[in-house]
Amino acid sequence: MRKFFGIAICLCFINFLFAQQSVDVYPNHWWAGMKEQKLQLMIHSTNIAKQNLILQPYAGVKLVKVNTVENPNYVFVDLLVTPSAKAGSFDLKSGSNTINYELKPRRSGKGTQYAQGVTSSDFIYLIMPDRFSNGDYTNDTLSIYRDKKINRGDYFARHGGDIQGVISHLDYLKDLGVSTVWLTPVLENDMPNRTEHGYAITNHYKVDSRLGGDIAYKNLSDELHKRGMKLIQDAVYNHCGLYNFLIQDMPMKDWVHQWPSYTNTTYKDGPLMDVHASKRDEKIMSDGWFTPQMPDLNQSNPYVANFLIQNAIWCVEEFGVDGWRIDTYIYNDLDFMNRCNKALTDEYPKMTMFGETWVHGVLNQAYFTQNNLTNIRFKSNLIGTTDFQTNLYGIAPALTQAFGWTEGVNKLYQTLANDFVYQHPENEVVFLDNHDMSRFYSQVNEDLAKLKMGIGWLLTTRGIPEMYYGTEILLKGYSNPDGLVRSDFIGGWKEDAQNKFTSQERSDSENEVFNWTRTLANFRKNSPAIRTGKLMQFVPEDWVYVYFRYTDKQTVMIVMNTSNDEKTIKPERFSEITKGFTKARNVALGWTADLTVPEWKVPGKTIWVLELGK
Amino acid sequence: MRKFFGIAICLCFINFLFAQQSVDVYPNHWWAGMKEQKLQLMIHSTNIAKQNLILQPYAGVKLVKVNTVENPNYVFVDLLVTPSAKAGSFDLKSGSNTINYELKPRRSGKGTQYAQGVTSSDFIYLIMPDRFSNGDYTNDTLSIYRDKKINRGDYFARHGGDIQGVISHLDYLKDLGVSTVWLTPVLENDMPNRTEHGYAITNHYKVDSRLGGDIAYKNLSDELHKRGMKLIQDAVYNHCGLYNFLIQDMPMKDWVHQWPSYTNTTYKDGPLMDVHASKRDEKIMSDGWFTPQMPDLNQSNPYVANFLIQNAIWCVEEFGVDGWRIDTYIYNDLDFMNRCNKALTDEYPKMTMFGETWVHGVLNQAYFTQNNLTNIRFKSNLIGTTDFQTNLYGIAPALTQAFGWTEGVNKLYQTLANDFVYQHPENEVVFLDNHDMSRFYSQVNEDLAKLKMGIGWLLTTRGIPEMYYGTEILLKGYSNPDGLVRSDFIGGWKEDAQNKFTSQERSDSENEVFNWTRTLANFRKNSPAIRTGKLMQFVPEDWVYVYFRYTDKQTVMIVMNTSNDEKTIKPERFSEITKGFTKARNVALGWTADLTVPEWKVPGKTIWVLELGK
Repeated sequence: MRKFFGIAICLCFINFLFAQQSVDVYPNHWWAGMKEQKLQLMIHSTNIAKQNLILQPYAGVKLVKVNTVENPNYVFVDLLVTPSAKAGSFDLKSGSNTINYELKPRRSGKGTQYAQGVTSSDFIYLIMPDRFSNGDYTNDTLSIYRDKKINRGDYFARHGGDIQGVISHLDYLKDLGVSTVWLTPVLENDMPNRTEHGYAITNHYKVDSRLGGDIAYKNLSDELHKRGMKLIQDAVYNHCGLYNFLIQDMPMKDWVHQWPSYTNTTYKDGPLMDVHASKRDEKIMSDGWFTPQMPDLNQSNPYVANFLIQNAIWCVEEFGVDGWRIDTYIYNDLDFMNRCNKALTDEYPKMTMFGETWVHGVLNQAYFTQNNLTNIRFKSNLIGTTDFQTNLYGIAPALTQAFGWTEGVNKLYQTLANDFVYQHPENEVVFLDNHDMSRFYSQVNEDLAKLKMGIGWLLTTRGIPEMYYGTEILLKGYSNPDGLVRSDFIGGWKEDAQNKFTSQERSDSENEVFNWTRTLANFRKNSPAIRTGKLMQFVPEDWVYVYFRYTDKQTVMIVMNTSNDEKTIKPERFSEITKGFTKARNVALGWTADLTVPEWKVPGKTIWVLELGK
Repeated sequence: MRKFFGIAICLCFINFLFAQQSVDVYPNHWWAGMKEQKLQLMIHSTNIAKQNLILQPYAGVKLVKVNTVENPNYVFVDLLVTPSAKAGSFDLKSGSNTINYELKPRRSGKGTQYAQGVTSSDFIYLIMPDRFSNGDYTNDTLSIYRDKKINRGDYFARHGGDIQGVISHLDYLKDLGVSTVWLTPVLENDMPNRTEHGYAITNHYKVDSRLGGDIAYKNLSDELHKRGMKLIQDAVYNHCGLYNFLIQDMPMKDWVHQWPSYTNTTYKDGPLMDVHASKRDEKIMSDGWFTPQMPDLNQSNPYVANFLIQNAIWCVEEFGVDGWRIDTYIYNDLDFMNRCNKALTDEYPKMTMFGETWVHGVLNQAYFTQNNLTNIRFKSNLIGTTDFQTNLYGIAPALTQAFGWTEGVNKLYQTLANDFVYQHPENEVVFLDNHDMSRFYSQVNEDLAKLKMGIGWLLTTRGIPEMYYGTEILLKGYSNPDGLVRSDFIGGWKEDAQNKFTSQERSDSENEVFNWTRTLANFRKNSPAIRTGKLMQFVPEDWVYVYFRYTDKQTVMIVMNTSNDEKTIKPERFSEITKGFTKARNVALGWTADLTVPEWKVPGKTIWVLELGK
């Protein structure tokens, strides 16, 4: 591929003329005893490439090669850290500088007490830390950052929420039945504005101090693990913030994808998989920039690839991360993604990762994960994706469209009927909404019954459920602009007039949804059928969708009447799975129905979660 | 599977008490020199099973077994017709009866001058023979049939069209550029009513006499082949007419799928492929009846399977059929279908077959044909399907919806971008409409420009184009009820006031569409790029979709502006495929455009078919 100098690159090769005297090394430390012995240090310092670099002897550590690149402010040092290397530190001499580099002892458990993986037994709660709770008012605005605005009235300014705010409410989340917390990216975003979302990383080796920095993030990890909960990190490989030092002082011009003039991605995934695709369309999709503020990293550059992969491993080991969410998955270099995913699971065999795949169609989505397709252009090793299909073409139309041949709840049924293309549909992360989509409560026109149906489905269908923060207290808002779906959790700030973290200050409706969620999530927690059982679904009839989750030990029947009106179903229809059972206990409402009667009347806008018994 | 006596079966076992003295044998004759040596004769005669059956010696023919079944009016005789058997006839003795059975010499060519297969080089014209042209008024109503109505004012009565009417207009079709004629089923439908459509077969070994019988059908085949054209037969395996003798006097109770009470299919394909499916849903889908008038044949019964497979081969050999369309494909027993397809291609290696797959989603459709899926419940060997996806989710929304992220022509693009799931997307039969769907001209609100765009797409996209009769003369109508889309070709009856088979009697608009079709179809006929070339498609931008068909020798560029307004495109965008060319000749309009200029203005509602040159 030809590369071009592009507009964003005008800053390149300027910095090193006037650059800092400091020496920065990335990763800033490493560990003794990692499975992968190769380690590539990126050393950034003015004209460092003009100095000889020497490794002072250290048992078990070998200097393989010092790589210089276009920009003399960088060297990339290939080391081998063999199993015999002990924790400690060694020196690298570069001219008059001595760089002391630490090999730490690994976290206890070496990947067993963290890097646990997130599975269908879990229940994920997605939080934008700036918008959940302000646990530390001292870090709201810091002079070291370009963006010093803080304004809770502005959806596109920081609001002051932070990791301590999350830590302070872990008991709330645990009570709700949450097992796993996914924070939108926490790494430093030293951008001039729009720093609230976290997707424009400027330093991959530092948690943003306004969120509490590395210390708060480690505390969160520890506090989660103490409660038997897990941490998901939101990883951004595709791009970084324009003010990342790697963009401001680029190691080489093809560190990012260059274009003759600014070129945005088309956001169209078709050309990646299409056997009829144009190469140009494919290149613009993959190598076009996500926004002008977020340069597109060139992952086919081996230095970039090493940098990103090592950073992923560093984060898991440094912070004790359990699961890995990958932002804008489909925009990455897919070969790189496979290599990156493999590096993580090689190091942490139980680790799971799921990629954001905001595409249209099961086939399109399946292309990006482990699937049952052969003879295709690319074969993904990704463990799971964010299941936009059961959302856009599933629960959303099920609860907002009239029942039709392919509409309404038939769409949900049909989307799940396409699961055969996935190797592991149980690894799909299902959701009602997220930080980019209209709040589900708004999608269903603030219909409490429909929201409860959505939550009932979320917590009983196949896959790993994710709930967006505040759904349980009826947060609402449409996604255009996206700021409107990122409002503050009420009570997360000490100045808030109400505190929805406590039942006393929640309205009846809010408590109804909170309690509904808590009841089902806690039932789920102890339900082998829902956690790891199979799914059996029946073709919807007359607005009603019935499905089962089951193992040898437990069978749970879910009846969803998407109509406004009462409907009749015949339990006998389901005899192949209800055989041997005579009763169905509604796990949320307590009553028990008789499976042997000819008909059940199901009220409109209702979901029943029924544990079968004899 | 448990079988039940059902309502339709009350007639069973009655006939043999009072039955006819005649002896009927199916197939009614066979051929010497077929590759498959096994032949199972079904002999139907009162109490035939109570007689010994003896084969009189005939060189090369062996009697393997005489199978008796529940109904003594049938025996199934397994013969081996070895390669040494010569054409001639042999006798089977059954009590006092002598059954003389003929082995004919095979058609000349033995499958090279017929059974040629239908490919993307062809252009199919779909005809309902009752509605195209009445070439023989003597066969309009015949006393031998239950249905004696003939009424051109009633969409659900016969109109009198016949095979001779098709033969009489083959020169018209050839002139239009058609290469292949597909007739809706021609085998006998001796039902009390609704006999116009042909899908309720009552005798698999006889062409309906009201269509002209076997003789007319053979004539059609000969006349087609004489013109270098091909014949597609519409095969119905899933069901037969209620008045078929095999239903009125069933060989055994599980000849058809039995239910405790009448059970219709759900028409829902999901359970066939769904890993979460209920067995009951699957059974109802496959074994439920298509309508109460058309019993669902039990193809897992080996006698039924043999009967249907031999009938398929018999039709190809008897009538010289070139291609095979399979009705209601997804409702058949899929294992049977694989066996049946293989039997046809084993006997006729060039033979192609495509199945009707009126489903929703590329993945659903691909499940029923040769695909790139592994680890699925069933693996189809079908060569192609009727491509409902590029219709319902392709050309129809492209020309009826506004351009949107997934709407309008983006839907067409996206559906084709999913071709990677097919092993052979070039075998998909593409169409604008058919005998079950609203006429395309009506779908686009009788917008001539849009109809022409549709036809332009049909004749240039990948796959095998099929045009429904009368599209070229602007026949219109909505599909509810379906009779409205089955109106007569104007001029097909001598009493018609106008004759649209001649240009003089067509309106300007009709001639415009006729000529447009003829021009493109005849260009296609000589275009290697369109017949067998690759497709390259570009992501639609601002209502405009551009794609190419190309081989080493020819490149054809198609520009489709789905907007009402003029749009601008930049030819440079397509340089990866236009490289080396400087000119683009509009094959329909004659003008030539310059590929080297920066911009082209494309009028609204326009499709350009451009052959590139230097």
